[in-house]
Amino acid sequence: MGEKRERMGRKAHSGKPRDRRESRRGPVEIADDLCWGRQPVLDLVKASPGRCVKLVIANNVRPPFLDELVDAARAGRVVYQMTAPEALDALCPGARHQGVACRVTEAKLLELEPFLDSLSQDKSALLVVLDHIEDPHNLGAVVRSAEAAGAAAVVFPKRRSALPGGTVVKVSAGAALRVPMVSVVNVTRAVEQIKDARFWTVGLDNNAESSLWNESSFPARTALVVGAEDEGVSRLVGESCDQLLRIPVRGRIGSLNAAVAAAVAMFQWAREQETNSGAER
Amino acid sequence: MGEKRERMGRKAHSGKPRDRRESRRGPVEIADDLCWGRQPVLDLVKASPGRCVKLVIANNVRPPFLDELVDAARAGRVVYQMTAPEALDALCPGARHQGVACRVTEAKLLELEPFLDSLSQDKSALLVVLDHIEDPHNLGAVVRSAEAAGAAAVVFPKRRSALPGGTVVKVSAGAALRVPMVSVVNVTRAVEQIKDARFWTVGLDNNAESSLWNESSFPARTALVVGAEDEGVSRLVGESCDQLLRIPVRGRIGSLNAAVAAAVAMFQWAREQETNSGAER
Repeated sequence: MGEKRERMGRKAHSGKPRDRRESRRGPVEIADDLCWGRQPVLDLVKASPGRCVKLVIANNVRPPFLDELVDAARAGRVVYQMTAPEALDALCPGARHQGVACRVTEAKLLELEPFLDSLSQDKSALLVVLDHIEDPHNLGAVVRSAEAAGAAAVVFPKRRSALPGGTVVKVSAGAALRVPMVSVVNVTRAVEQIKDARFWTVGLDNNAESSLWNESSFPARTALVVGAEDEGVSRLVGESCDQLLRIPVRGRIGSLNAAVAAAVAMFQWAREQETNSGAER
Repeated sequence: MGEKRERMGRKAHSGKPRDRRESRRGPVEIADDLCWGRQPVLDLVKASPGRCVKLVIANNVRPPFLDELVDAARAGRVVYQMTAPEALDALCPGARHQGVACRVTEAKLLELEPFLDSLSQDKSALLVVLDHIEDPHNLGAVVRSAEAAGAAAVVFPKRRSALPGGTVVKVSAGAALRVPMVSVVNVTRAVEQIKDARFWTVGLDNNAESSLWNESSFPARTALVVGAEDEGVSRLVGESCDQLLRIPVRGRIGSLNAAVAAAVAMFQWAREQETNSGAER
């Protein structure tokens, strides 16, 4: 196990001689949510398919290992892709990837539909839906605040988004391992599903006409949709929301950090729930 | 100018050959608020004494340079300290410090008393007082939110605190160069001065009996006192505050990130100011 752990992407920055030599050519930029090498990846796919986001296999990998890996991926419903060996070199620069790598999360990812079903009897519940937050520090900060505000889950897309890997778990002070993390393929569709599950969906948008301050209160079952760092909530996602609200800001910046905006809105919900003693609107 | 800039602490991570060689012995840990080298430090002390927090001079530095530097420091009211050469090696590992270094901020620092005088006629004003926030990312995040919430200033101690250097300016999206940054020697004393200037001082404290949710509203002139990451508001500072409030949190963490806690409280003030149309309590 020791040797396998060492090959995990997160360990690439730990300062072993090989890494240092590579760092003279420039910083090693291996995402901290990557696992590589034949045996580590095979073990991971077999043992924790729920943590595997995407498996990448070079097309020069041969049977019998190839068959064993693909069979394990299919059995665990892990998405996999065959690719040129060079693509793996680019994915894990300088690492001995042996033709296989897998994006992996620390947290177990849940599916939206069964999760929403599990909330169907809850009078009060807050969901936080992230529209492509790519910075793991921001994701970690959101998850930490979500736990503290009493959110039922954090919902995020599998692609173009930070995943709950090591950095996120650390920044969230471990909350990413406790708050249910729900991964979805398409955020717009997720918002529709959440509405169908009787949640009021509120998109935070700097350009919205209505201000968060003027709203009387959030319904007890609310889903807050928070956009990416620069772009905010995307147009399609925004159109799917029941309501768009802006947090009034002063000064030259014109927008809040995504994690701060999420926290301000989440705690407004938490406050209202406490002062309204959980009465539904 | 080019060469001088290169010697600034912040540039030490830029990947020049000298830095890379040093990085093989371990990460170069030079704080990003440090300037070193004779000419750069002398120029800095002469041109921007308001940005110099503390000048450190090795006791093997000789006249005439020593006299010129000390004269400049005295003229600009810059605090300086003579020390053993080894202390400078420890302060700027691997750098050619030539016996002098200076802690420096990007932002110009203001003094509390004249700043409070400048607010004496303002009916509504928010101050954010930081009780030893050491993480520059947290300081930057607080300053960004402070500008957005319309705070009049951020007040912080000169010692055992992050200073508004490069990282802080970046994380704050430039707000640290726009929001007045007031540095103080002693936070407890600063809280007393702020009370004397007719501000209601509220310390955020996880262990406070009163909840932020139960308070009717903040006075128009409010100073929020936010504690350090782990320890919260220190005992003495807390005792100086008019009131201690906690933000009710759920989950296992039991506390919010300091920047998030500050933002939640600041935006509650901002919201109340807007909905109360600035009426004083």
